[in-house]
Amino acid sequence: MNVYEAIRKRRDIRSYYKPDPIPDEVLARILSAAHLAPSVGYSQPWNFIIIKNIEIRKKIKQLVEEERKRFENVLDEERKAIFSKIKVEAILDSPVNIAVTYDPNRFGPNILGRSTMPETSLYSTILAIGNLWLAATEEGIGVGFVSFFNKEKVKEILKIPKEIELVGYLTLGYVREFPKIPELEEKGWNKRLTLSDLVFEDVFGKKPSDKFRLLLDRTFEKIFNNF
Amino acid sequence: MNVYEAIRKRRDIRSYYKPDPIPDEVLARILSAAHLAPSVGYSQPWNFIIIKNIEIRKKIKQLVEEERKRFENVLDEERKAIFSKIKVEAILDSPVNIAVTYDPNRFGPNILGRSTMPETSLYSTILAIGNLWLAATEEGIGVGFVSFFNKEKVKEILKIPKEIELVGYLTLGYVREFPKIPELEEKGWNKRLTLSDLVFEDVFGKKPSDKFRLLLDRTFEKIFNNF
Repeated sequence: MNVYEAIRKRRDIRSYYKPDPIPDEVLARILSAAHLAPSVGYSQPWNFIIIKNIEIRKKIKQLVEEERKRFENVLDEERKAIFSKIKVEAILDSPVNIAVTYDPNRFGPNILGRSTMPETSLYSTILAIGNLWLAATEEGIGVGFVSFFNKEKVKEILKIPKEIELVGYLTLGYVREFPKIPELEEKGWNKRLTLSDLVFEDVFGKKPSDKFRLLLDRTFEKIFNNF
Repeated sequence: MNVYEAIRKRRDIRSYYKPDPIPDEVLARILSAAHLAPSVGYSQPWNFIIIKNIEIRKKIKQLVEEERKRFENVLDEERKAIFSKIKVEAILDSPVNIAVTYDPNRFGPNILGRSTMPETSLYSTILAIGNLWLAATEEGIGVGFVSFFNKEKVKEILKIPKEIELVGYLTLGYVREFPKIPELEEKGWNKRLTLSDLVFEDVFGKKPSDKFRLLLDRTFEKIFNNF
């Protein structure tokens, strides 16, 4: 699977998991891909917690349920009806969860490039998650990025020290399929934006030539449909 | 090039650029890959500013020079000697720069998953940069992530509105090669960490079995050396 194929196949998966376990060899490949991510000043600030323990996962699922209810209450009736059909996590339906953290103090204070932009440690960790996600796609494994909880409470459950940040909580499992259309588009929650509207030339807001805009949209369609 | 190959070939490139222009068709493919990134609540919060204008780039390079001097002054003599050999950007040596921004307000306040973790809009944009970086690698194009400047001053030069965040400033160009070892390792700035030291089981700090740790390190070496 080449890079473009993995990129267009990748989905945030919540509903299509199969119960099959993930072999250790496969997990090791996926984590290797994550560890090959770029990092600011080569600081490699990430850790990966592999969570299979069901009692721990039940506690985290409980936190999601609380936030789900809270979010539902701020929606109007129409949005609420769509939202009720959307699954926000598969913490117990997937065989493996992985929490990804970053340590802002690894290698001390003078990290190259961090001096002016301390947030780049976070960026590095997100890029590790991106690598993990694409490698998982290559392996036929779906990933769901759970963001529907109080992070501090999750940190307590996972015994993550105060000074370490929790960045992502992921569910992983083999999938029956990678659906072509993202679930939120299919269920009418949101639509895909047109690439050419998102690209500017030299300064923010300045549109590129019509010719380049057409090329952008045609290229996107070609990649997206060459499934 | 499969996903693992792109992931292990990808480098943060500052010194190996060729002057050849990047055809629009190739830029369109790379930007399509970025637009296929996951985003919180399908919010697609990114914009891409393609900067070829040399006057704009000279102004940004000037900002980097200022920060470079500031960073150098906090280092001890030994680190300073290593740092003096490290190139921190290729703003003028690369044919294309791309600034990547995010709009925290796109699609309004009730973004699925953003309610509890507003920082996930930023995460989405970083994942778009990750996709762009890997697609560029597939195309033989190196990417450098410049973080050595005052972000607010760059925003002014690029006319980015206050409420829009600047996330990444990238240099892109064809490269003579993707060096096997990251420049910061080769020049003695830092070393690669051992994957098995970064992986925990169920809770933070709990080491996995020796068998799994060995598997992690062997798998990493195999992927890394199968170049």
